[in-house]
Amino acid sequence: MSPQPLKVAMIGGGAGAFIANPHQKAIHFDGTRKVHAVALHPDPEVAMNEANNWPYPVKGYASYDELFEDQAKLPENERIDYVVIVTPNFVHFDPAMKALELGIPVMCEKPLTVNLEEADLLVAKAREKKVPFAVAHTYLGHWSSWFSRHIVQSGLLGDVRWVDSYYLQGWLADKLEDSGQMQAEWRTDPKKAGGSGCGGDIGTHALMQLRFVTGLDVEEVSARLDKFVPGRPIDDHFTTYGKLSNGGKCLVRASQICIGHKNDLGIMIAGTKGALKWSQEDPEKVTILLQDQPDRTYWRGQVCANDGFLGDVPQWLLDEPTIPSGHGEAFHDAYARLHREFEKDVRAYQAGEPWSCDGSTYANIDDGRMGLAFIDACIKSDDDDGAWQPVSKS
Amino acid sequence: MSPQPLKVAMIGGGAGAFIANPHQKAIHFDGTRKVHAVALHPDPEVAMNEANNWPYPVKGYASYDELFEDQAKLPENERIDYVVIVTPNFVHFDPAMKALELGIPVMCEKPLTVNLEEADLLVAKAREKKVPFAVAHTYLGHWSSWFSRHIVQSGLLGDVRWVDSYYLQGWLADKLEDSGQMQAEWRTDPKKAGGSGCGGDIGTHALMQLRFVTGLDVEEVSARLDKFVPGRPIDDHFTTYGKLSNGGKCLVRASQICIGHKNDLGIMIAGTKGALKWSQEDPEKVTILLQDQPDRTYWRGQVCANDGFLGDVPQWLLDEPTIPSGHGEAFHDAYARLHREFEKDVRAYQAGEPWSCDGSTYANIDDGRMGLAFIDACIKSDDDDGAWQPVSKS
Amino acid sequence: MSPQPLKVAMIGGGAGAFIANPHQKAIHFDGTRKVHAVALHPDPEVAMNEANNWPYPVKGYASYDELFEDQAKLPENERIDYVVIVTPNFVHFDPAMKALELGIPVMCEKPLTVNLEEADLLVAKAREKKVPFAVAHTYLGHWSSWFSRHIVQSGLLGDVRWVDSYYLQGWLADKLEDSGQMQAEWRTDPKKAGGSGCGGDIGTHALMQLRFVTGLDVEEVSARLDKFVPGRPIDDHFTTYGKLSNGGKCLVRASQICIGHKNDLGIMIAGTKGALKWSQEDPEKVTILLQDQPDRTYWRGQVCANDGFLGDVPQWLLDEPTIPSGHGEAFHDAYARLHREFEKDVRAYQAGEPWSCDGSTYANIDDGRMGLAFIDACIKSDDDDGAWQPVSKS
Amino acid sequence: MSPQPLKVAMIGGGAGAFIANPHQKAIHFDGTRKVHAVALHPDPEVAMNEANNWPYPVKGYASYDELFEDQAKLPENERIDYVVIVTPNFVHFDPAMKALELGIPVMCEKPLTVNLEEADLLVAKAREKKVPFAVAHTYLGHWSSWFSRHIVQSGLLGDVRWVDSYYLQGWLADKLEDSGQMQAEWRTDPKKAGGSGCGGDIGTHALMQLRFVTGLDVEEVSARLDKFVPGRPIDDHFTTYGKLSNGGKCLVRASQICIGHKNDLGIMIAGTKGALKWSQEDPEKVTILLQDQPDRTYWRGQVCANDGFLGDVPQWLLDEPTIPSGHGEAFHDAYARLHREFEKDVRAYQAGEPWSCDGSTYANIDDGRMGLAFIDACIKSDDDDGAWQPVSKS
Repeated sequence: MSPQPLKVAMIGGGAGAFIANPHQKAIHFDGTRKVHAVALHPDPEVAMNEANNWPYPVKGYASYDELFEDQAKLPENERIDYVVIVTPNFVHFDPAMKALELGIPVMCEKPLTVNLEEADLLVAKAREKKVPFAVAHTYLGHWSSWFSRHIVQSGLLGDVRWVDSYYLQGWLADKLEDSGQMQAEWRTDPKKAGGSGCGGDIGTHALMQLRFVTGLDVEEVSARLDKFVPGRPIDDHFTTYGKLSNGGKCLVRASQICIGHKNDLGIMIAGTKGALKWSQEDPEKVTILLQDQPDRTYWRGQVCANDGFLGDVPQWLLDEPTIPSGHGEAFHDAYARLHREFEKDVRAYQAGEPWSCDGSTYANIDDGRMGLAFIDACIKSDDDDGAWQPVSKS
Repeated sequence: MSPQPLKVAMIGGGAGAFIANPHQKAIHFDGTRKVHAVALHPDPEVAMNEANNWPYPVKGYASYDELFEDQAKLPENERIDYVVIVTPNFVHFDPAMKALELGIPVMCEKPLTVNLEEADLLVAKAREKKVPFAVAHTYLGHWSSWFSRHIVQSGLLGDVRWVDSYYLQGWLADKLEDSGQMQAEWRTDPKKAGGSGCGGDIGTHALMQLRFVTGLDVEEVSARLDKFVPGRPIDDHFTTYGKLSNGGKCLVRASQICIGHKNDLGIMIAGTKGALKWSQEDPEKVTILLQDQPDRTYWRGQVCANDGFLGDVPQWLLDEPTIPSGHGEAFHDAYARLHREFEKDVRAYQAGEPWSCDGSTYANIDDGRMGLAFIDACIKSDDDDGAWQPVSKS
Repeated sequence: MSPQPLKVAMIGGGAGAFIANPHQKAIHFDGTRKVHAVALHPDPEVAMNEANNWPYPVKGYASYDELFEDQAKLPENERIDYVVIVTPNFVHFDPAMKALELGIPVMCEKPLTVNLEEADLLVAKAREKKVPFAVAHTYLGHWSSWFSRHIVQSGLLGDVRWVDSYYLQGWLADKLEDSGQMQAEWRTDPKKAGGSGCGGDIGTHALMQLRFVTGLDVEEVSARLDKFVPGRPIDDHFTTYGKLSNGGKCLVRASQICIGHKNDLGIMIAGTKGALKWSQEDPEKVTILLQDQPDRTYWRGQVCANDGFLGDVPQWLLDEPTIPSGHGEAFHDAYARLHREFEKDVRAYQAGEPWSCDGSTYANIDDGRMGLAFIDACIKSDDDDGAWQPVSKS
Repeated sequence: MSPQPLKVAMIGGGAGAFIANPHQKAIHFDGTRKVHAVALHPDPEVAMNEANNWPYPVKGYASYDELFEDQAKLPENERIDYVVIVTPNFVHFDPAMKALELGIPVMCEKPLTVNLEEADLLVAKAREKKVPFAVAHTYLGHWSSWFSRHIVQSGLLGDVRWVDSYYLQGWLADKLEDSGQMQAEWRTDPKKAGGSGCGGDIGTHALMQLRFVTGLDVEEVSARLDKFVPGRPIDDHFTTYGKLSNGGKCLVRASQICIGHKNDLGIMIAGTKGALKWSQEDPEKVTILLQDQPDRTYWRGQVCANDGFLGDVPQWLLDEPTIPSGHGEAFHDAYARLHREFEKDVRAYQAGEPWSCDGSTYANIDDGRMGLAFIDACIKSDDDDGAWQPVSKS
C-alpha cells in the first residue's frame, strides 16, 4: 500500500514572500508531501483572502494561532504532519514554540530566531518534547555538500587547517530598503532581522556550510561588521576570523554590497594532505586538490568508490541522486532534499520509531541555535573592536 | 476559488525507468498538477504491483488500454486531464494515438515515434481532433532557451549564418547493452530505437535546440552516422552538416562515445552582427558576443530591458523565473516549465478557450514530427555516403 | 665557454606586419639567439629605411636576394645561422628555396606555400640538401601540446576513435578587407592566400594540432568551404569531416566569421578508454576524462609520474617548463619553444652532428607539406559537393 | 639610427635560482636590452665558473662589489645601464645601495629589503641621487592590471568600498625546507626572509595589486600571521583586515599551505556603482559587474573606447598589447612589460630628460618601501593579537 502524502502546514508565505515558493516546490517535489494548510499573513483578512485564491486548494487559516488551535479538534488523519515556518525572522520563535508544544515537527527558515535567548528556549522545548526540528539551511541539501562532508570525514584531506567560507551578494549595495522593497526592508531593520543584518542573514549560511562539511565548530571569533551603505543601521558586510574546534583557523565572510555577486556562497578547505573547493553557483561539482596531483573535479552522479583515489564511498551517497551527471540539480533540488530527509524523520516520529534529526543530512535545532550563538559572539566582538569572543555552547 | 490540480496519467515509468522520475517531479512541482493514474508496465501484473506500491497513492491500471477504456465510464470530474507517455520509443505511437482519439491532451517523450510514417499519422490525428500535444524536449524549458530565442528574434545577432548545435555523451563508449543495462539495451536496438541510435536519441535534442532558438528549419542534410563500438548495429556518433531555411549553414552533432562528456548539449549561433553561446551543463547563463565588445554573460534573473545593449525585453520573460539569479534552476526546473506551460494550454482547451500549443514555449507535435523527418533524411544521406537529402515537411 | 648566440635573418616583417613581432620575441627569449639581419620589405627603399630605424641594431638588406648573395662573401663567423620567413604566404616559396640551396636552415611561417606543387618542390630540395626546416605551427610549442601527445602515445586513452579539432575566429565577419586592413586584405585574396582562405590560414592549425597530438594522419576528406561574407572570393568558414589513418574519424573545423571568438583553437580526442580536451585560449591545462572517473585537469608544471593514474612520464617532459604551475606560459612562450627546439637542430647541423627535425617537437617541412595536401584535397572535395577526396602523401 | 640595446647587469641568479630566469627572458624580450654582466653567486669561484658557462656570453664578476668597482674604470659606452638584483631578500639592500651611490638605475626583486629601516635608507638615497628604481612586482606588468587601474580611475565602479586581494599557494604545506629545497629554505628562515614569511613573500604582492589598481593605501591593519606547519618559525598563512585611505576596508590575504593552489593571486573590488574581478592565473580577462547588468568580460586586446559602457580609454592603453586577443600574454610578458617601461625611464635618465618612475606602470622604490611598512605593521598587530596598527608613511 502506498503511504499517504504528509500534510504540511505553511506559516507565512503570503503577499510576495520569496522563500515560501521554493518550500512549496520542495514539499510537492516527490509526490509524498503536500501543502495542506496555510496561515499566510498576520492580517487575518489578507490571510484568508490569499488562501482562497491560492494556486491550488489549501485549508486557509486566519492566523497560525487559529491553525494550531484547530489541530486538537481534528480527527487524527486530518491533522497536519509538520509545519514549515517562512515568516520574517522575528516571527519564527512564537509559532515554532507553539508547534513544539503540540508535538508537531517543525521545519523553520533560518535564522532560528533573532537572538540567542529565544533560540535557547526553543532548544530546551524541543529536547523536552522530543520533536523533530529542521532549520532550512538550503545548501546542506546539495549532494555536493554531502559528498564534501564525506571527503573530509574520510581523511582524504588530512587535518583541517584552514577554511574560507563565504557568501557574497550585491543586491543591497544601494539603499534598496528606502524603495519599499519588502525583502530589503525587514532584512535591514534590526528589530526584525536581529542584531546583525548581513551576518545573520547569510553569514550564518557560510557558517553552517563550514560546520556541516568539516564537522568542526567555530569556537572563538574576531569579527568586523561593516555598514557601507550610508544610513543603514545594521551591517551589510561581515568578516570573521575564527578558531576551529580542532585548532585550525577560518574566515567566515559575507557581503551584500559586492555588486554583481548573486548568491556567491562557497567554501575552500585546506587540510594537511589536500584541499577541497565548492561553490553554490556551480553546485554539481566538487574539486579535490592534492599536492603534485591534477585537480580532480567530481560531478554529482559521476563518482565511484575505489577509483584509485577515493576509498570506499557509502552506497547511500552513490545512490542518492536520481538524475545522472550533467543533468543538473540546483536550488529546488537542494530544498527538496531537506524536506525528503525531514520526511523520513517525521514518519519515524509518527510511527514511534527511532529518528535521528542529528544534523547529518539537514540542519537541526542545535545547528540553528549555533548560528545564533555565532552571530551573538560576532556582534560582541565587533562592539569590542574585533577582540576575541567565545561562541557559547548549548 | 483555487482551481483543482490537473490529474495526470502516466503511461510507462515502472521497473527502473529513468525519465518517469523527472516527469513526476515536474508534474508535482507547482502544486497545480498531480499524478493521478498510472499504467506502468506492459506486464499487467508488474503494472498493478508497482502501482500498489508507488511512493504515493495512484490509481493503477494493468495497461494503458484499460486506462483509456476506463475514462469514458468515469464521472467527468474523475477523468484525467492529460497523459504523459514515458514508454520506450517504439511504444509512443499507440498510446498517443489512442489518447488523441479520446480527445485527451498528450505530453509525449521524444522522439515522437520511431519512424516518420507514424509521426505523420499522429500529426494528422492531432489536427483532426484539435488536441494539445507536447513533445518533451526538456532543454527548451530552460529560461535561457527562451531568452536565447528572444535574442535571435530581436535581431541583436543580425542574420544567422552558422549554427553549431551539439549533444555529446560518453556513456555508450563500451558495449554497455551487453551488460543488460536497460537504458542502453533499447537505445541500441534498431527495433526499439528506430533507424538511428545516437542521432535519434540525442541528435534530435540538438536539432530542436537549434530550431527553437533560431526559429529556423534545417532543410537539407549531409549526414554521417558512425558506429564506433564493435558489434553495435546502430550509430553511436552522429555528424550532420545542414542547410538552414534562411540560407545559413549548420552542424548538428551528437555522440555517445565521447567519454567524460555527460550531457554536453550546447549551441553556438553566429550571425552577421554577433554570436551567442549556451551550454546545458551550465544552463543559467547566456553569453552574447559582439564585434570589439566584451563578452556579455547574462544570468537568468539578472536581465533588465534597455540596459544600454538589450532593447525591450518582454515582461513575461523578465517575470518568468521565480528564484533570483545565482540560485540555480536546472534539469527539473526545465521539465517543470514544460508542464507548467502545457497546463495553460490544457486548461484553456478544457474551458473551450483558445490555446496555442504553437511551439513557442515547448515543442509541439509538429516539432516532434520534424525530429523524425530530420533523422529520416539523415539516415538516407548516410546510406548515400553523405549526399544531400531534403528534410520533408508536413 | 659560452656559445655565441645564433644569428638569425628575418625575411619580411616590415610595415605593420604582425607575426614578425612574436618571432623576434621568441628569437631573443633565451639570450642564445638574436636577430642579426633583416630583409624587411619588397620595396628596397622601405626595406633599408625600416632596417635603419629598427628598435635595435640589425644588418639591413634591400631584398632577400641581396641577403642571400651576401652570405657567400662573408667570413664564416659573420654568416647567418638560420632564416625566418615571415612574408605573406605567396612569398614563402622563393626565399625558402634559395635558403635551402645555400644550406641555410629555415623556419618558415605557415602555410609552407600557397599550393601543393610548390610544397613538393621544397620538400624535395630539403631532402636533397639535408637542411633543418621548421614550419611555425605555433601551438605545437605549448607544453600542453607535448603533454597531450605523450598521453595519447602512452595509451591512456586507448585507440583514438574521434577527434574534433577546431579553430574559430570572428574578425572577418565583416568585409574588413575593403577597409584596407593589410592582414585581412591578403588573407582574402586567392592569389596571395592560396585556394582556401579560412581553411588554409587557420584550418591548417587545427589539422596540425590533430596530427601532432594524435600521431595520426587525415587520409580522406569530405569538405565544405563556405563563403559567408558577400563578395568574398574565398572561404571564410571551413568544415571537414575526415578519415584518420587508424580507422577513426574526425572533424577539422575553422571559421573567421564567428564573432567574439578570438583565437579559439582547441581539440577533443575521444578514445576507446578515455578522452582529452585542450584549448589554446587556456593553454596551461589539459583535461583527461575516463569513464566513471573525475575530470582530471593537469596544469603545466604540476605533473608527476606514477601519480596513481599517469604511468611513467619522460623526464624531459617534466623538466621542460622553467616556470612553475600557475605562472602562465602563453603565446610567446610557445613561439620561443619552437625556436629553442629548432636551435638544437641547427647547432647540431652546423657541428656535423645528427639532428632530427622529425616533427616531434615542432612541425617540419613534411608537416608543412601535409597542410597543403590537406587543403588541396579539401578544395577538390568542396568543388565536388563534399565527395570524398584522398589527401596525397609525399 | 637604431639605439644600442641597454646593457643590464644581473646580481644573483646562479645555482638554481628561479626568478633570474624570467628576468633574463624579460630583458631579452624586445631586442632592446641584454644581459651584459653578471655577479651570480656569493662564492667567487662559483660566480666565475657559472658566468663562464652561461648559456650565452656575459661578462662575469666574482662579486657585485667587483662589478661596481669595475664600472668607473670602464669607458662610458661599456658601462652597464641598469642593474637587476635577484639575490635572496636579505641581500637586496647592499647592492641596491651601492648601485644608487654610483648613479646606476636599479630593478630590485621584491621585497625591497627585509626590514623597514633598510627600506627607508634606500628611499632616502634614491631621492638624494635621483636615480630610477623599480621593484619587480610582476603582476603590475599585466595589461589587465593597467586596464583595471584605468577602470577604477574612470569612476565606473564609483567609490571603492571593499577590496579582497589575495595570493594563495600550497607548495609549503609540508615542511619542504627540511628537504634542502633552496627556495623553501630561505623563505622560511626569518634571518633571510624578514619577520614575516608568507606575508612578506606573497602578501606584499596582494597588497601591491590592491594599491596599484585602486590607487589607495592601506593605512591601518589588524593582522593574523599563522604558522600551520609544525616547527616552522615564521608565518605560512596571512590574513589582514585593513582600512583604506578613502575610508573603505579590505582583506589582504596570503597562504602557502592551501594545497593545489598554484599562484592564485586575485583581486575583487566592490565600489558604490560596480565591482571588478581579476585573477592572475587567467590574466587576460577583467570582469566588470554592474547592478542588474550582465557580467562584462574584457579580454586584453578586445577593448574599444565608448562601447556603450566604457567611456574614453587612453590610446596608449589600447595600443599597448602587440598580440591580439585570444593569443595570450602571461608571466613572461608581464615581466617584460616591467623592463620595457623601466627602459623608458632609464633612457630618459641617461639623456638628461625628465623621467617619471611614478609607480603608474611598475612599482617604484616608494611602493617597495610601502610593502615593508605594511608587513612591519602586520607583524606588530599580530604580536598584539590583532590590534590595529598604523602603516607608517615615508
